[in-house]
Amino acid sequence: MEGKDEDVRVGANRYRERQAIGTAAQAEQDGKDYKEPPSAPLFEAGELSSWSFYRACIAEFVATFLFLYITVLTVMGVAKSSSKCNTVGVQGIAWAFGGMIFALVYCTAGISGGHINPAVTFGLFLARKLSLTRAVFYIMFQCLGAICGALVVKGFQPHQFERLGGAANSVSRTYSKGGGLGAEIVGTFVLVYTVFSATDAKRNARDSHVPILAPLPIGFAVFLVHLATIPVTGTGINPARSLGAALVYNKDQAWDDHWIFWVGPFIGAALAALYHQIVIRAIPFKSK
Amino acid sequence: MEGKDEDVRVGANRYRERQAIGTAAQAEQDGKDYKEPPSAPLFEAGELSSWSFYRACIAEFVATFLFLYITVLTVMGVAKSSSKCNTVGVQGIAWAFGGMIFALVYCTAGISGGHINPAVTFGLFLARKLSLTRAVFYIMFQCLGAICGALVVKGFQPHQFERLGGAANSVSRTYSKGGGLGAEIVGTFVLVYTVFSATDAKRNARDSHVPILAPLPIGFAVFLVHLATIPVTGTGINPARSLGAALVYNKDQAWDDHWIFWVGPFIGAALAALYHQIVIRAIPFKSK
Amino acid sequence: MEGKDEDVRVGANRYRERQAIGTAAQAEQDGKDYKEPPSAPLFEAGELSSWSFYRACIAEFVATFLFLYITVLTVMGVAKSSSKCNTVGVQGIAWAFGGMIFALVYCTAGISGGHINPAVTFGLFLARKLSLTRAVFYIMFQCLGAICGALVVKGFQPHQFERLGGAANSVSRTYSKGGGLGAEIVGTFVLVYTVFSATDAKRNARDSHVPILAPLPIGFAVFLVHLATIPVTGTGINPARSLGAALVYNKDQAWDDHWIFWVGPFIGAALAALYHQIVIRAIPFKSK
Amino acid sequence: MEGKDEDVRVGANRYRERQAIGTAAQAEQDGKDYKEPPSAPLFEAGELSSWSFYRACIAEFVATFLFLYITVLTVMGVAKSSSKCNTVGVQGIAWAFGGMIFALVYCTAGISGGHINPAVTFGLFLARKLSLTRAVFYIMFQCLGAICGALVVKGFQPHQFERLGGAANSVSRTYSKGGGLGAEIVGTFVLVYTVFSATDAKRNARDSHVPILAPLPIGFAVFLVHLATIPVTGTGINPARSLGAALVYNKDQAWDDHWIFWVGPFIGAALAALYHQIVIRAIPFKSK
Repeated sequence: MEGKDEDVRVGANRYRERQAIGTAAQAEQDGKDYKEPPSAPLFEAGELSSWSFYRACIAEFVATFLFLYITVLTVMGVAKSSSKCNTVGVQGIAWAFGGMIFALVYCTAGISGGHINPAVTFGLFLARKLSLTRAVFYIMFQCLGAICGALVVKGFQPHQFERLGGAANSVSRTYSKGGGLGAEIVGTFVLVYTVFSATDAKRNARDSHVPILAPLPIGFAVFLVHLATIPVTGTGINPARSLGAALVYNKDQAWDDHWIFWVGPFIGAALAALYHQIVIRAIPFKSK
Repeated sequence: MEGKDEDVRVGANRYRERQAIGTAAQAEQDGKDYKEPPSAPLFEAGELSSWSFYRACIAEFVATFLFLYITVLTVMGVAKSSSKCNTVGVQGIAWAFGGMIFALVYCTAGISGGHINPAVTFGLFLARKLSLTRAVFYIMFQCLGAICGALVVKGFQPHQFERLGGAANSVSRTYSKGGGLGAEIVGTFVLVYTVFSATDAKRNARDSHVPILAPLPIGFAVFLVHLATIPVTGTGINPARSLGAALVYNKDQAWDDHWIFWVGPFIGAALAALYHQIVIRAIPFKSK
Repeated sequence: MEGKDEDVRVGANRYRERQAIGTAAQAEQDGKDYKEPPSAPLFEAGELSSWSFYRACIAEFVATFLFLYITVLTVMGVAKSSSKCNTVGVQGIAWAFGGMIFALVYCTAGISGGHINPAVTFGLFLARKLSLTRAVFYIMFQCLGAICGALVVKGFQPHQFERLGGAANSVSRTYSKGGGLGAEIVGTFVLVYTVFSATDAKRNARDSHVPILAPLPIGFAVFLVHLATIPVTGTGINPARSLGAALVYNKDQAWDDHWIFWVGPFIGAALAALYHQIVIRAIPFKSK
Repeated sequence: MEGKDEDVRVGANRYRERQAIGTAAQAEQDGKDYKEPPSAPLFEAGELSSWSFYRACIAEFVATFLFLYITVLTVMGVAKSSSKCNTVGVQGIAWAFGGMIFALVYCTAGISGGHINPAVTFGLFLARKLSLTRAVFYIMFQCLGAICGALVVKGFQPHQFERLGGAANSVSRTYSKGGGLGAEIVGTFVLVYTVFSATDAKRNARDSHVPILAPLPIGFAVFLVHLATIPVTGTGINPARSLGAALVYNKDQAWDDHWIFWVGPFIGAALAALYHQIVIRAIPFKSK
């Protein structure tokens, strides 16, 4: 099963089979028409001395900064108005989160991989798609970016920011802590599962829509999870976003549930990595 | 008419004609530049012993689970609020259904074909794009996934779920049963017609937008039918979604109209299969 | 200027220059890397005896039927509710119109060219992209489809349909007839200009986003014009849509302004054809 | 670093590495598989005597005309209604701005580069992607187009236009001038950064989604900035749009803050140009 390790011949028709939507993949009948990238090492010596590594970290910082800036400002605009009809509404908030991820993944995918989210970094690290060093640096820069983004929004209207909650995440009073944790787990699963589907080497080789549309379903996944779970937890599924908003808001109620917005997304990301690598790709069971 | 059975020569320019939007296809003048996949057999012996078959079933289960989870949770969030202006609104519900289908078709198209809907499976089975065994298994796993997805949402807030109707489908009191059935038929026709257009071998070969955008119009079809028919039936067009919500809600009013959400979608899917195979592709009238 | 009539060599790199967004096209420096399709004859003898011609007409009929069905039903759902917050809202109506055009152009572009609108057919006819015979047949089938689509919606709730105006177009009382006519002209210009940009042979050859995204900006154009002119005329920009709704509603007020929804779109389409063919492509001034 | 100046061999696999989303670019290990276009000269003698130059100017004029027409008319429709729930709402306004940029960039990218915004022209000029002559002409034609677009909307309902503010930009009373300026700077940074990412020669060569989706994230960037900053400044990020609305409205309050809508966008565009050229591409530090 997927065991033929025949390499792509130069000049040959590279993608022998394109899997049409609506039919089931029957990969067994074909030789391997794609190349699985090798697992990233835990520590890559050269990384820390290369400019592209720090450039990627800066790109993650700037992207997470812009992500928090636009989304928290949108949340404030909605929260401030007494009538939600005069604002972009809760749906507009969901668009801001999802749309920013779409635009930022589009812009930074080629520079840093376009994570903008520690849960995504963690999931891809578990699948050994980046080194531990890189994962740790990315998460640090993402958190820094998120804090700075929220700080700028607070700088515009410090009193309003504190009065209106500063877009900090917390579990709604009508839900249990367990419910909130569950919502974060499944929500992050939806996002990280989409990221894994978009970055799968085999599917990228066979379905032309996979590499080309990639940033769009990733952005939509974020949008959709917000549609569903804004009433539950305000929607985290991104520990950097939750940390940035909590730290800048910095009141007890923001910190009480804060563990949920790290534990939930990391569990969800791990489940998505397991599902994709074990069930969908069966990578551990493959020869070689 | 499309009768020249000339095969694509290796190394030749595969797609001789690309049909531009705005002009009419004149397929008669060209040799055959695409390969119609052979009809799937009713029973495929090897399927039941292959891992990719069960992987496809699992993928359908997980996709339908996530579909119901996100959409039912979105419906609950809107239903719970006394003022719809403080929620994502009915339009947000339509986005949740359509957007999830977009993201899930994107993710699972290469694994299982990305049906996530017994009506789609039924329509594609009628066109002999998958075997009867596979169709039956897919539908079973879709229904199971839908039930589990709705159960998780109910688990969050059991009382609210029962009080607010649990997103179960039923014909609105201002419409007749016939009207509701009609709305389900035409709505499913829109969806399955889009699926057939997106999976057509001939169009995939000629129009570059067909394979690449594919999941997007399929998701939009679901979104659009929801915009139109949420006030009519709550919009089924997916028997697994209707069954999952009805079974978990499990009150008489959810079961009274339930047949409509199986009969309607299956008729609509059959009509779309007929329209595409007979009128658009004239497949039965072709030599060989 | 663009005069080098060098043909694409078989096997050569077909698209020598890809025009990046953000830089200006400098076509003068390059040989011709695309083939302008020949003008369609006014009357094409073979057409009326070919199956693909009637198939295209049927596809236009079905597409316009589904277009009116979904959009008029969406309008009715919004009109019926006393509080617009409980509906998909006016923005949802705009999505229904634009989204349906996106999905239907995606599905029918390869069959009939995907017009679904007499104004589009008229504009493309002026640019000689289809024969007069085909244009007349398309417009007839589009109008028939529109009438049937509106009829089905009326069949669901005849009294409501008449009470709520049946989505018929008319100039809002706060606008003059001239204003309404102007809005239809510019609105149709936006749509048909987008169609011309999407079907341009030269741009299709050079910019990879042009053929692949094509149905999306066309759908968006319809969506955007609805955002702007629903408060002005209810937005026609499609004489078949206006005729279908007016005929099925059939009250004086729907007929009084009806000429505006034929004259406006046809003028707008003609201006877009002029702009694209004369200014953008300078086709009449080219040698050969 | 990126210093190997090996040219693409004719007939060779042009794009050796395609950077998958989710992994980090490691450009150092590869030869140069793309060609950086040469810097545009400050003054290009031939330009002023070529038809394609004036055609590009006309395309910028028409695009900015349509942009203002659709967006200002949408704003008026929302402003006029006493209940925002009966309109497309503030979110609909954001869609109008972002959607028009998507459609217009799609249509005009191949003709003029699709700027439709003096800040974009200024940013690309700083990166030497177009000549000074061209930049000055583009900005003039953009401003002219914007004025004409707003004039047509005013022509429809002159009194309403003046009563409702004519979509002119000004800093909201709850924000400081500095806050408004900051919002314009960061907002324009988001837009121009997306434009630079979409037009980067290296990324275009490596990531298939970059050239194909290009107009979509650019339109989304505009949409997202509007979601966030309509409550702050009404959102300029486009000096031509601000000038057109202010000049046609022509009251003191529109002129008081007007400098912010030139200074802010130009600073934001310059920062984006710096970030992309220096940090992301390190262009000044490259050998030759």
